[in-house]
Amino acid sequence: MDRKGIIIVVSGFSGVGKGTLMKELVARYDRYALSISATTRDPRPGEVNGREYFFLTNDEFENLIRENGLIEHAGYVNHYYGTPRKFVEEQLDKGRDVILEIEIQGALQIKEQYPDAVLLFVMPPSASELKTRLEGRGTETEQVIAQRLNRAREESVGIENYDYIVINDDLDECVTRVDEIIRSAHNTPSRNLDYINEIRNELNEL
Amino acid sequence: MDRKGIIIVVSGFSGVGKGTLMKELVARYDRYALSISATTRDPRPGEVNGREYFFLTNDEFENLIRENGLIEHAGYVNHYYGTPRKFVEEQLDKGRDVILEIEIQGALQIKEQYPDAVLLFVMPPSASELKTRLEGRGTETEQVIAQRLNRAREESVGIENYDYIVINDDLDECVTRVDEIIRSAHNTPSRNLDYINEIRNELNEL
Repeated sequence: MDRKGIIIVVSGFSGVGKGTLMKELVARYDRYALSISATTRDPRPGEVNGREYFFLTNDEFENLIRENGLIEHAGYVNHYYGTPRKFVEEQLDKGRDVILEIEIQGALQIKEQYPDAVLLFVMPPSASELKTRLEGRGTETEQVIAQRLNRAREESVGIENYDYIVINDDLDECVTRVDEIIRSAHNTPSRNLDYINEIRNELNEL
Repeated sequence: MDRKGIIIVVSGFSGVGKGTLMKELVARYDRYALSISATTRDPRPGEVNGREYFFLTNDEFENLIRENGLIEHAGYVNHYYGTPRKFVEEQLDKGRDVILEIEIQGALQIKEQYPDAVLLFVMPPSASELKTRLEGRGTETEQVIAQRLNRAREESVGIENYDYIVINDDLDECVTRVDEIIRSAHNTPSRNLDYINEIRNELNEL
């Protein structure tokens, strides 16, 4: 069976722990690569260019857009965010599945260009648990928490656009489930047409 | 997350080993139940009523059809074969996934009535390996083997109707893969609408 890489788009409510989940997934299994976004916002203390983000100037970013160098992009609070195409396609060619942590608008842009992409939505065990996690960070004001819960309400409308949901209750278990879901997605006929046609041809030649 | 049972339809070329695969799957994991077909053909030596098949008279079978007691049925070499509805629905209600080993016509009948059913096609590592396995049984004439390969050619046309394919190379590994694929299928949004709506309602009430 041929092993071509798949694009895996991961979304989920703020506070659900999808960042930690994806880092753990990529650390545990060599077959995944985490896409790094480009942005025009300034680096925050501790952020490294090429690790958290590729930090670009406005001109550089707009050049990338013009050259079709981004597979999705969006503006957010006066800054651009986007996914560089080069890294994604290089990794796919190597047979790696590429994880993109983006929101639903980007997810739908990706699905249009790459119908084989798998969209995964990370869910909390319950809404009250989500609230507890947001409060537990201890870094957010009540107002920010309220905004995030509002955003979660809006995002929850789009869940049916995703191929799979996964519940992040126990991190370790959830990483295993995500890996199983992605590996299972490799087993659809549409992702194995070469192999299926090979068997057909071989059957005809027997 | 709610755990409702799913119907899993398993098809595959004769000789691919799907019977052994399903027996092993059901033996290994308690969450699966193997559906037993009804038939009007006579039991062969060693076959037990209610184990290999439910052996029915023509009248009994036709009564079942009239009472909508079969979720699919077909005629084959002057005999009826079908899947009794009662066992399947009892097991689904218990949260068990029910495995049906049937051919594509039945698979498509099932998918119409149970759109949530998962259709799985078991493939050989190669066509020549399939031929080797058919010959290796040592019980079939050359003519029968040729018929089976012909049938495989016909069946291979319908593979794209299935949700997943799985390659039966190493039995043990293949059982694990089938289990992962089925468990992953439980994670689609359409199979978790109750849970998703619960989270939405809870978010609105926070």
